[in-house]
Amino acid sequence: MRTGGVLNILGKLLILLSLFLLTPIPFSLYFHDGMIGTFLACSALGAIWGGILIAVFMPEKEMGYRDGFAVVVFSWLIMAFLGALPFYFSGAMNSFVDCFFESMSGFTTTGATILAQVEVLPKSVLFWRAMTHWLGGMGIIVLTLAILPLLGIGGMQLFQAEMPGPTKDRLAPRIQDTARILWSVYLFFTVAEILLLVLCGVDFFNATCHAFATLATGGFSTHTSSIAYYDSVYVEAIIIIFMFIAGINFSLHYQGLHGRISVYWRNEEFRFYVGLILVTVLIITCINFYHQTYAEFGENLRTASFQVVSIITTTGFGTADFDQWPSACKALLVTLMFVGACAGSTGGGIKNVRVLLFFKYARRQLTNLVHPQAVSTIKFGKVKVPHEVLISIFGFFALYLAFLLLAILLVTGLDVDLVTGTTAVIATLNNIGPGLHKVGPVQNYGELPQLAKVILSFCMLAGRLELYTVVVLLTPDFWKMARKPVLRWHKVPERTNGR
Amino acid sequence: MRTGGVLNILGKLLILLSLFLLTPIPFSLYFHDGMIGTFLACSALGAIWGGILIAVFMPEKEMGYRDGFAVVVFSWLIMAFLGALPFYFSGAMNSFVDCFFESMSGFTTTGATILAQVEVLPKSVLFWRAMTHWLGGMGIIVLTLAILPLLGIGGMQLFQAEMPGPTKDRLAPRIQDTARILWSVYLFFTVAEILLLVLCGVDFFNATCHAFATLATGGFSTHTSSIAYYDSVYVEAIIIIFMFIAGINFSLHYQGLHGRISVYWRNEEFRFYVGLILVTVLIITCINFYHQTYAEFGENLRTASFQVVSIITTTGFGTADFDQWPSACKALLVTLMFVGACAGSTGGGIKNVRVLLFFKYARRQLTNLVHPQAVSTIKFGKVKVPHEVLISIFGFFALYLAFLLLAILLVTGLDVDLVTGTTAVIATLNNIGPGLHKVGPVQNYGELPQLAKVILSFCMLAGRLELYTVVVLLTPDFWKMARKPVLRWHKVPERTNGR
Repeated sequence: MRTGGVLNILGKLLILLSLFLLTPIPFSLYFHDGMIGTFLACSALGAIWGGILIAVFMPEKEMGYRDGFAVVVFSWLIMAFLGALPFYFSGAMNSFVDCFFESMSGFTTTGATILAQVEVLPKSVLFWRAMTHWLGGMGIIVLTLAILPLLGIGGMQLFQAEMPGPTKDRLAPRIQDTARILWSVYLFFTVAEILLLVLCGVDFFNATCHAFATLATGGFSTHTSSIAYYDSVYVEAIIIIFMFIAGINFSLHYQGLHGRISVYWRNEEFRFYVGLILVTVLIITCINFYHQTYAEFGENLRTASFQVVSIITTTGFGTADFDQWPSACKALLVTLMFVGACAGSTGGGIKNVRVLLFFKYARRQLTNLVHPQAVSTIKFGKVKVPHEVLISIFGFFALYLAFLLLAILLVTGLDVDLVTGTTAVIATLNNIGPGLHKVGPVQNYGELPQLAKVILSFCMLAGRLELYTVVVLLTPDFWKMARKPVLRWHKVPERTNGR
Repeated sequence: MRTGGVLNILGKLLILLSLFLLTPIPFSLYFHDGMIGTFLACSALGAIWGGILIAVFMPEKEMGYRDGFAVVVFSWLIMAFLGALPFYFSGAMNSFVDCFFESMSGFTTTGATILAQVEVLPKSVLFWRAMTHWLGGMGIIVLTLAILPLLGIGGMQLFQAEMPGPTKDRLAPRIQDTARILWSVYLFFTVAEILLLVLCGVDFFNATCHAFATLATGGFSTHTSSIAYYDSVYVEAIIIIFMFIAGINFSLHYQGLHGRISVYWRNEEFRFYVGLILVTVLIITCINFYHQTYAEFGENLRTASFQVVSIITTTGFGTADFDQWPSACKALLVTLMFVGACAGSTGGGIKNVRVLLFFKYARRQLTNLVHPQAVSTIKFGKVKVPHEVLISIFGFFALYLAFLLLAILLVTGLDVDLVTGTTAVIATLNNIGPGLHKVGPVQNYGELPQLAKVILSFCMLAGRLELYTVVVLLTPDFWKMARKPVLRWHKVPERTNGR
C-alpha cells in the first residue's frame, strides 16, 4: 500500500467536505438558528486538516487496487468523523459516540437515528444531516459502478458490462468520466423530487432534506413521525416513486434518460426488483386486510406500498409502525431487508442480482440432480454468468453470514434483547434504518449501550462498502504490504517498481 | 423412476417396521398398560399393507439414483404414518395431525413434542416413542454414509473417502455391508449407555428409552421435565458423553473401536466440533455467571455444558430453561442450532464440515483479494477439496436458505409470533426439538395451529433428508420420468434399457 498517496487523497477529500460544510450556512442565516459559527469552524477544521495531509504527503501517480481499499474505507471513516462535529457542537446529543453513530448513519445512507425527537436539532443541522445522506449516496454510486468492479469485489464486475467502465491502466481519468455522468443523473432526480414536493405544498427546506434522503435511500426525516407527518397521498406517492428510482441501477437511468427506455425492462435484475415489490405489497396488503390492521383495504394497500418500497430500497422512511403488524408481515419485511435494492443503486442489502443468481444456482443444482447428464449454464439476461462471478458471490455470502452472526452475538452480548439486537444488526448491516421492537419504526437507537452503537456504526460501514473492502483491511496480510509514506520534503528518486 | 420397484422396497420396509411394532409388547405386559392389542393391530396393519405392496409390485434388479430419492422420502413418510398409529389409538393425543407430528418428530430424530405432559402416555407407547428415534437414527446413519454420497448430494461425497463406500455398479450388496458395520457400532453404544445409566440407578425402562433418544440425537424423554427430572450430575455426564458421541461421524467410531483412536483427532471436522463445543460452553458459562443466571459458577458450567452439547448435537434434551438465559446465550444457541453435528452422525443441522468449508472458502476469497496472484486451494484435513464438492455445498446453502425463509413466512403467516415461528422452523428443519418462546425448552408444540404442525412436520422431513432428496421430488421434471409400475401378473419382457 502506498500510505503517502492514500493520505494525500484523503486530504483532498477533506477539503471537498469542508466546502460542503458551508452549505448549511444559508439555512442558518434564514432560520436564525445561530449555527453559522459552528459550521464555519467545522469547515475550517476540515480544510486545515486536509491541507496538512496534502502539504505533507506526496501524491503518487500509480495507485494499486490495495490503495483503493484503504482510500474507500478511510474516506467513509473520515467523513463520518468530520460530519459528526456539527451534531456535537449543536449540543442536542449526549455524547460523541451518538454524534458519530448519527453521522455514520448519514454517510452510509442508513438512516438509523439515536434521536427520540429530531426537531430538537437546529434547522441548519437538520439540513446537514440530510446532506450527509446525499453525499454518501454520491459516493456509493461511484464506488459500486466505477471502483468496486475494478477491484473485483463480490461479483460486481457483472454489472459493468453495460457501462463504459474504467480499465486498469487508466484508472483516474475514466473514474472521473463515469462519476460525472452518474452524478448528473443523481442531481437530475434530486432536483425533480424537490420540485414535485414543493408543488405538493412542502416548503423548500423540507422538500430538499427529504429529496436528499430519498435519492440516497437514506431515511433521515426532518420530522420525528417521518413521512407520516404529512399524511398526504401525494407526498407519499412522490416519495415512493423516487425511492423506487433510487433503488435501480444508475447506469440504467443514464441510458433511460437518453431515451432508451426499453433498457429497464430488458434488465433482468430490474424485472426481479419490480416483481418482488409487487408480490410483497400484494401479500402484505392482504394479510393486513385479513387481520384488519387498518379497516379499509385502500389504507392497507397504501401503508404496505410505502413500507415495502421503503424497506426493499433500504431507505427506512415510515408512514406506519410495522412493528405492530402481524408477524408474517414482519417476517416478510425482515426478508426484504436482506434482499435490498439493485446493484449500482444507492440502496444497500445483499442486492437483487446476487439473490437472483443465488436462487438460479440452487435451481440448477436441482435440475442437475434430476438430469445429471444435462449441461446447464446460469444466465443473467442473455449473458452467461462467468464462473468467477458465481465464486465471488458465494464468497460474499460466506463473509456476510459470518459477519452477521458475529455482530448479532456481540450486540446481544451487551444486554440487548434478541429481537432488538438481531434486527438492529440486520437494519444497520443492510443500511436500512429501523428494525423491530426497541429499534422499531417509531423507536430509535438512543437507548442502546454505547458499545453497541460503536459496533452498529461499524456494521453500517461494512454493509455500505460491500463487506470485503472493510474486512480486507482487518487482515494482517494487508498491512504487511504497507509502504512508508513519501513526504514532500523527501528527495524522491525516479520510481521503477510497479506496486 | 421405477415406480413398481420403489413400491416393492417400501413394502419390505413396512414388514420390517411391523416387526419393530411388536417390541413394546413386553413392556406393555410388564406395566399392565393394556396396549398389547393396539400394538398387535398396528403391527398387523403394517404387515398386511407391506405384504400387499410386495405381492402386487415386482422388484427390479437395477435401481437408479432417482429411485433412491423416492425410496428414501417415502420410507420416512410411511414410517411416520404407521408409527403414528399407536399414539392415535392410545387416546392421549387430540388429532391425527398431532400423532403424525410426534411420530415424524421421532423418526427424524427431532424430538419436538406436542405433549404438555408426556407421562399421560402408557409406558409401552413411551417406549415406542423412543423406538421411533432409534430406528430413525439407524436409517440416518445408513442414509448419510452409504446412500447420499452415492447420489452426490450436498457435498457429502467428501466423507466417503475414509469408508469402504459403495460404488455405483454394486449398490445393494455394498450398502448392506456398510449398514451392518455401522449398525453394530450404533448398537454397541446404545447398550453401553443403557448399562451406565442403570449403574447410576435409572431403571431399565427409562435407561433404554433415554439411550435410544440419545444415540439417535432425538430428545424425546419419558419425563416432562426431561433430564432435569433426575437432577443427577452422573446421569447428566453420561448423557452429555453419549450425545457427544452420537454427534460424531460413525465411520470414525468404526475405526476408533478397532483401536485406531488417533483417527478422531486427525479428522478436521472432529477437531472443529470439539473446539466449537468447548468455546461455546466457556462463553455461555461466563455470560451466565456474569448475569448470575445461577448463583454458583459450577452450576453455570454444568447447565451450559449440557445445553450446548444437547443443542449442537441437535438432541434437544434439557436440564435448564435456556429461554430465560441472557439474549447473547440465546443467540449463541440459535447459531449452534444451524451448525448442528458432524456429517455421518445421527445429528441434524447444516453439519460442521459444511460450515467449516464455507468459512475456509470465505477466508480464501479474502486472501485472494490481498494476493490476487496467489493460487490457493481449500483443504479438508490433508485432502484438497474437489471443486464439485464446494459447488455442491453452495447449492445446499442456497436451497437451505430458500427453504428456511419460505417455511418461516408460512408459519408466521398462521398467526404465530415472530420468535416462536422462526425458532420453531429452525428447531424442526435442523431436527433439534425445542426452540424459543412458545416452543421453548419447557413449552411444547401442542398449541400451534394444525396447519403449522403439518408444515413443521415437513420441515423435519426435509431437514433430516438433507433437503435435496425432498425438494427434488417436488420438481415436475422428477415425475416426468416415472415409469408405469410392473405388476406381478404382468408378463415382463427381458429388460434392455438402463434407466
